[in-house]
Amino acid sequence: MFDSIVTHIRKHAGLTDAEADILTSLLTVRDVKKKEHLLEAGKVCTEYYFVAEGCFRMYLVTAKGAEQVIQFGIEDWWINDYASYKTGLPSGYCIQAVEKAKVIVLDKKNEEEMFTRLPQMERYFRRVAEKAYSAQLNRIHYIFNLSGEEQYHLMNSRHPQFVQRVPQYMLASFLGITPEFLSKLRAKK
Amino acid sequence: MFDSIVTHIRKHAGLTDAEADILTSLLTVRDVKKKEHLLEAGKVCTEYYFVAEGCFRMYLVTAKGAEQVIQFGIEDWWINDYASYKTGLPSGYCIQAVEKAKVIVLDKKNEEEMFTRLPQMERYFRRVAEKAYSAQLNRIHYIFNLSGEEQYHLMNSRHPQFVQRVPQYMLASFLGITPEFLSKLRAKK
Repeated sequence: MFDSIVTHIRKHAGLTDAEADILTSLLTVRDVKKKEHLLEAGKVCTEYYFVAEGCFRMYLVTAKGAEQVIQFGIEDWWINDYASYKTGLPSGYCIQAVEKAKVIVLDKKNEEEMFTRLPQMERYFRRVAEKAYSAQLNRIHYIFNLSGEEQYHLMNSRHPQFVQRVPQYMLASFLGITPEFLSKLRAKK
Repeated sequence: MFDSIVTHIRKHAGLTDAEADILTSLLTVRDVKKKEHLLEAGKVCTEYYFVAEGCFRMYLVTAKGAEQVIQFGIEDWWINDYASYKTGLPSGYCIQAVEKAKVIVLDKKNEEEMFTRLPQMERYFRRVAEKAYSAQLNRIHYIFNLSGEEQYHLMNSRHPQFVQRVPQYMLASFLGITPEFLSKLRAKK
């Protein structure tokens, strides 16, 4: 049940079987239905999610009522609104399952106990955050310097399964283009 | 010489005076001239910089030859190209001093020794990375959902000193607007 997360952690930090048992005693597994929300805007984010199966989108609703996708999270990726999780202030984001999914949940109440009993998790979460930070910097780079078409081709070459997996209107929102234009790009290919 | 970094670390993780001595033995201080580069595109990023004094910009040169500012770094902020630092691959970014500056340098060669001798630095750098990640997510949110004018007013209300400090053309590049438009916004105010 916790195999995927233990494997992922061991890529970045040491974790004996006994330590893995301590860790998993502090985590829970949750099945998530397609379109179910893990977080809704206006609520405080009190959990951190490791995607064991499935795909999530983090989005916000703009002043004009449109849903703008900020990021996706697939297997072996952590997702939450860190600012809300950290400050206890309401989140401006929603996190929703794109497909039937399974997450491993770290509740904020268990976070300090985890870091106290398993200090190597500091290293693991440092690397998770550094990688996520770096990915967002690249994204900003792409938003400013690549057209929607170029971003689509880049994404399609690097993550072809992902492009197939996500509904077209969500991918278009993530890329900042219209679904119609994305449809044309797909047809061209 | 290292006061600012020790103070900053103690906000996030414990550090005795003896441990601070170990840490500072692994760091160096560097004076940086205005417009001097800490990193140039095409080179590998092998250092991590803590801004003790001054202001830096991280930018890239677009296919059209324009300099696009991706982020700024001011006092108490760490800056580098983490992806290049981690992978050893050439960076696509430049990091340049906007004004005369002083940085505290963590060389990649000393990083593991630091984490081995001072495990609490894992916690510190986890928090640094989480905060940086969260800031970039917000930035993406603003890019998609606020006009250049709205982004300028938000920045001006949250970081007024910063808006005064950075040359107009760099701030315009960061906001994705022309310097002429930024000039008009400033005049309106």
